[in-house]
Amino acid sequence: MVKQIRRLMPNEKIIYFGDTARLPYGSKSPETIVRYALEVAAFLSKFDIKILVVACNSSSSYSIEALRAKFDFPVLGVIEPGSEAAHSATKSKRVGLIGTYATVQGKAYGRALAKIDRNIKLYKKACPLFVPIVEEGLYNHTIARQTAEMYLGPLLKHDIDTLILGCTHYPLLKNTIRKVIGKDIKLVDSAQSTARLLYETLEHKALLISSPRQKDIDIFVSDVQNKFHKITRIFLGRNGVNIKKADLDV
Amino acid sequence: MVKQIRRLMPNEKIIYFGDTARLPYGSKSPETIVRYALEVAAFLSKFDIKILVVACNSSSSYSIEALRAKFDFPVLGVIEPGSEAAHSATKSKRVGLIGTYATVQGKAYGRALAKIDRNIKLYKKACPLFVPIVEEGLYNHTIARQTAEMYLGPLLKHDIDTLILGCTHYPLLKNTIRKVIGKDIKLVDSAQSTARLLYETLEHKALLISSPRQKDIDIFVSDVQNKFHKITRIFLGRNGVNIKKADLDV
Repeated sequence: MVKQIRRLMPNEKIIYFGDTARLPYGSKSPETIVRYALEVAAFLSKFDIKILVVACNSSSSYSIEALRAKFDFPVLGVIEPGSEAAHSATKSKRVGLIGTYATVQGKAYGRALAKIDRNIKLYKKACPLFVPIVEEGLYNHTIARQTAEMYLGPLLKHDIDTLILGCTHYPLLKNTIRKVIGKDIKLVDSAQSTARLLYETLEHKALLISSPRQKDIDIFVSDVQNKFHKITRIFLGRNGVNIKKADLDV
Repeated sequence: MVKQIRRLMPNEKIIYFGDTARLPYGSKSPETIVRYALEVAAFLSKFDIKILVVACNSSSSYSIEALRAKFDFPVLGVIEPGSEAAHSATKSKRVGLIGTYATVQGKAYGRALAKIDRNIKLYKKACPLFVPIVEEGLYNHTIARQTAEMYLGPLLKHDIDTLILGCTHYPLLKNTIRKVIGKDIKLVDSAQSTARLLYETLEHKALLISSPRQKDIDIFVSDVQNKFHKITRIFLGRNGVNIKKADLDV
C-alpha cells in the first residue's frame, strides 16, 4: 500500500503505523480489532493528519464506522475500493475472496458488494498460512504452491471469474496464486484500488500537495524486532527506512 | 503442558491464561515479551496461586528473572527442565534446538545447557511456520512435511543426536518431524520435563494436594475468538472447557 501511494502521490508525507506488538489482527475478535484501531488512530491523530488510510483488511472489516464516529479526518478502508474493483472486473458475477479469518468471517465485503450489485455472489476462504509464508519470504516456494492449492481448490469449484486478494500480504503471492488458478481469473489487489481512491479523495477535497515537498516516510511500530526490518524490505524493496518505536500508552 | 500437568497432578487446580489478544510472542522483542509476562503474572497473582509455570518457550527465554524479582511465588520456566532432559538424552553432546525467532535468538537454552555441561554444542533453527501449521490442524499434512524438511535439513548436517522441541506447539508435529529426522535422534519435549519438575517442586515444598479436591481448570484469555476454541480442542483433545475473557487492564 505504501508503495502504491508513493508511486501515485510522491509528494505526500506518509506516517505509517505498524502494530507489531500485537500483530497479527486476522485471528482476533471484532471487539479487539476495533479497540486496537481506535488506539492506533488516536496515536496518528497527534500528527495532524489530513486523512487516515486503514490499510489492513481485517481492521477495515470492522473498525471503519467506529473510526469515522470518533475522528474528524476522513477515513478510508480497503473494502469499498476493493469491492468496486471486483465489480468492474467480474462478468459472471461470481467473485472469490481470500483473507484472514477476521476478514472472511466478517460481512464487510459482502455488504459492500451487495450495495454495488445485489446479483454478485461472493465465495470466501480464509487462508491463515499465507501471511507467515510471505513473512518467511517463501512466496515462490513449493510450500506456498501447495498451500495455495489447498486453499484455492474449493473456491475454484465455484467457477469464480474474479478473486479479491483481501490481505496486504497476498499480492506478493500473485505469481504462485496465478499458477494455481490459471490465467483467466482476474485478481483484485485492494491496495491498488485504495491508493487510487485516496488520490481521488485528496484531489476532490483539494488536499493534494502539488509541489515537491515532503518525500519522506515515517514508520512507527509498537514493537521493534528484527522481523519487521525484514518485512519492510520485502514490501518496500529497500533498506534504510527510518523505523521508530511508538508507545501506544496502553 | 496442561495435559501433562493434569496427568501427573490430577488433584491440582489449574488457572490458565492465554494472551490471545497479543499472540504470538515468538516474533516480538525481548522487552515486549517481558512486559507482557509481567502483566499476565499480575493478573494470575490475584488468584492466590502457589506457583507460576511459564509454559511458553519465548516467554521463558526472557522473562523468568523479571518475574522472580517481582513476585513472591516460585516461578518455573520450560528452559531449565528442557535443558536437563536434553543433557540426559545426548551422548554425542551435539544438541539441536527448534523454536520461534524469540527463543532461538535468545541465549536462555545455551546458558542453561552450558551450566550443566560446558561441552554440549547447541545448534539452533527458528521455525516460524510450525505454529500456524499446527493451529491450522495440518501437522500431518504434506505441507508440514515439506516445511519440516526445509527447517530441519540444515540442523541434520550438524550431526545432532538430540533435538529440543522448543515451543509448546511442536510436540503435535512429532510424527512429521520423526519422519524427517529418522528414528535415531532423541526428541525432547519441554512440557513433559517441566510437568515433572513442577511435581517435584510442589512435593519438595509440601504443596502437593493429596486428596481429590479441585479437578477443574479455569481458562482465561485476553481475547475470545473461534480460533482459540479450535486450538483448545487440538491441545486438550476435548470440547466444553470453560473459557473466560479476562481484562488485563492495559
